[in-house]
Amino acid sequence: MSIITITTDFGIKDGNVGAMKGVIWNIAPQAQIADLSHLISPQNIQEAALIVARAAPYFPDGAIHVVVVDPGVGTERRPIAGRLGSQFVVGPDNGVFTLLLQYFEQNNQLVQWVHLDQPHYWLKKISHVFHGRDIFAPVAAHLASGVALEELGSPINDPLRLNVKQPQRTVYGWRGDIIHIDHFGNIHTSIRAEHLGDASVATIRLCGVNIHGLVQTFGERSSGELVALFGSNGNLIVSVVNGNAVRRLNARLEDSVEVFLEE
Amino acid sequence: MSIITITTDFGIKDGNVGAMKGVIWNIAPQAQIADLSHLISPQNIQEAALIVARAAPYFPDGAIHVVVVDPGVGTERRPIAGRLGSQFVVGPDNGVFTLLLQYFEQNNQLVQWVHLDQPHYWLKKISHVFHGRDIFAPVAAHLASGVALEELGSPINDPLRLNVKQPQRTVYGWRGDIIHIDHFGNIHTSIRAEHLGDASVATIRLCGVNIHGLVQTFGERSSGELVALFGSNGNLIVSVVNGNAVRRLNARLEDSVEVFLEE
Amino acid sequence: MSIITITTDFGIKDGNVGAMKGVIWNIAPQAQIADLSHLISPQNIQEAALIVARAAPYFPDGAIHVVVVDPGVGTERRPIAGRLGSQFVVGPDNGVFTLLLQYFEQNNQLVQWVHLDQPHYWLKKISHVFHGRDIFAPVAAHLASGVALEELGSPINDPLRLNVKQPQRTVYGWRGDIIHIDHFGNIHTSIRAEHLGDASVATIRLCGVNIHGLVQTFGERSSGELVALFGSNGNLIVSVVNGNAVRRLNARLEDSVEVFLEE
Repeated sequence: MSIITITTDFGIKDGNVGAMKGVIWNIAPQAQIADLSHLISPQNIQEAALIVARAAPYFPDGAIHVVVVDPGVGTERRPIAGRLGSQFVVGPDNGVFTLLLQYFEQNNQLVQWVHLDQPHYWLKKISHVFHGRDIFAPVAAHLASGVALEELGSPINDPLRLNVKQPQRTVYGWRGDIIHIDHFGNIHTSIRAEHLGDASVATIRLCGVNIHGLVQTFGERSSGELVALFGSNGNLIVSVVNGNAVRRLNARLEDSVEVFLEE
Repeated sequence: MSIITITTDFGIKDGNVGAMKGVIWNIAPQAQIADLSHLISPQNIQEAALIVARAAPYFPDGAIHVVVVDPGVGTERRPIAGRLGSQFVVGPDNGVFTLLLQYFEQNNQLVQWVHLDQPHYWLKKISHVFHGRDIFAPVAAHLASGVALEELGSPINDPLRLNVKQPQRTVYGWRGDIIHIDHFGNIHTSIRAEHLGDASVATIRLCGVNIHGLVQTFGERSSGELVALFGSNGNLIVSVVNGNAVRRLNARLEDSVEVFLEE
Repeated sequence: MSIITITTDFGIKDGNVGAMKGVIWNIAPQAQIADLSHLISPQNIQEAALIVARAAPYFPDGAIHVVVVDPGVGTERRPIAGRLGSQFVVGPDNGVFTLLLQYFEQNNQLVQWVHLDQPHYWLKKISHVFHGRDIFAPVAAHLASGVALEELGSPINDPLRLNVKQPQRTVYGWRGDIIHIDHFGNIHTSIRAEHLGDASVATIRLCGVNIHGLVQTFGERSSGELVALFGSNGNLIVSVVNGNAVRRLNARLEDSVEVFLEE
């Protein structure tokens, strides 16, 4: 039983993800397919990189993650596939795997890439605008059917990486950025539990407000209160209990966040 | 072949449902997974209870329904699982299973609950804010793999129940409430076919308008007409043919509805 | 392994698609199910016809496509099922299969229809408003389980067809219509590569603007430029690179589009 996940910016109305599933099942009828997200903001490679890196590590060995956020489709940008530890990725060489790659590298997992240059494993007719259906879906399905990564393309070791901004140490603590706004309106920052170590947080400052200390979970405060806590992936997040923090604070992606540690 | 359904208020952008599926397939690679809804209004336990109770009974014996609408995540609220007749449920003890439980009780099905207190069946690392991924998904997957309910926790018989408002008999008929607004803008009321029995409906009054009599289906009237009929789950609904009743009537959840019966 | 796809105008909040999957798995536990779209505009048969015809041909032989965009549910409109080449369709007789049927006819595939008049293959209790769950899902599942099409109903050869407007030859080229607006805001027209043959496009005129010539893919122009190209299904589309053409041009479905060919 092979598992394939799909992440795109296609939305869920037009049937394009459906066409990809049809292509996959033509080649790998046993594949289980899960949608990770099809609501990546159009052409937003950073957002796709983040969402894939949050979910993919929870999948079993051998899972194949197809990501199609691909503003360069049909141009010189390479179609690529990789083995990251025991999982696989397939998609455009535009940096969309950067964060997942970092995760596996930090865990000292073997990483291996190929440039998909073997049209034998693609659909016969390749459109200039939908490589998700015509190249990436069939390649993922061939991987799921047992074709070796090495068969699918020529080895490369220079996949494009996004320049990911890291939180900075300051005199009083850390300075980071807002990197994600989730469905509930929670504000996710780039500052992680690892950055803070055993230090205690005195104050979080963002969007002109100060939040004193951290809670462990939402229910420790009353509805409507602004709280800071570690989210389920280890990042510092800011929330309104049973409410919407991004609306409350008028926060925006890339706004900066400061953490002041207890002295 | 085990079937697991997932219902959440997570939305479909952030990849959190995907992470749950990854966790499930790690433990139960053969599980078939269906999404019931991920657009439950944030923290709206009543709405989740209703949507699960409408869909779950159509699933086969052995189906496992995971519901994660969980404002109390990480607090003292218990994680629970239950056997309702031949199906299973897994989620927070906050009343979200109330209506499905009523359905099975009314059909005289056996009901059995456990407090999930066996961390052996959870992910190793439990976040304070995402028990859907860390507790409920792995527990559902263990159920799907054949672990007995009794292994997963200690027996309890006091799951929290929502206080569900029932329609009232009036001198002229019945008084109920608007309990759901669907995707088409149809208005679903708490008044059911069973309440009315063989009596004929003279008039339905809601939002300041009167609708005379019932139709059997939309196509009996012209586009744009306001009609009342029994919906596919046996509740009295109010619709605009090929239109949107909630916008027409400016209706709101919990508005009251009166039915006047023929004398 | 049988594959069933589902296309509806039900949205993804109310759990109705989930109920259909439950019904299917009761009858055909091995069926793989893919959602094509549940965001068809309410009662929009044309839109459903288009989206199904774009995705269905990519599915394997034996795939069963259930479409429930069904304003006439519960009236005299027939429930039907068909074999189109090596695939199957199930849904209301309202024209929703017109474009997929044309696709298979143009490829000289065998076509065969039945009027679903054998309640033995339906749920026991049929609502007047949800034949997707009560008739079409179980019929699809019986097909998936190996029941012959002929068993499910009486042969018919007059399924309702939509009147599909074809592009017209003009003195200078072709005149067509806007037939779809996709998630990215790309404008899809009825003019296809086959219409133009080897002729070169001089100018595309729509919504009061002229676009000179075609590109092969988005990345040939800078962000924000208006371009025309052939989409992944062979239709002429108009896009803004990394932007939204429908917003830029204030385009609407059924607006006309003119193509002027090089002399």
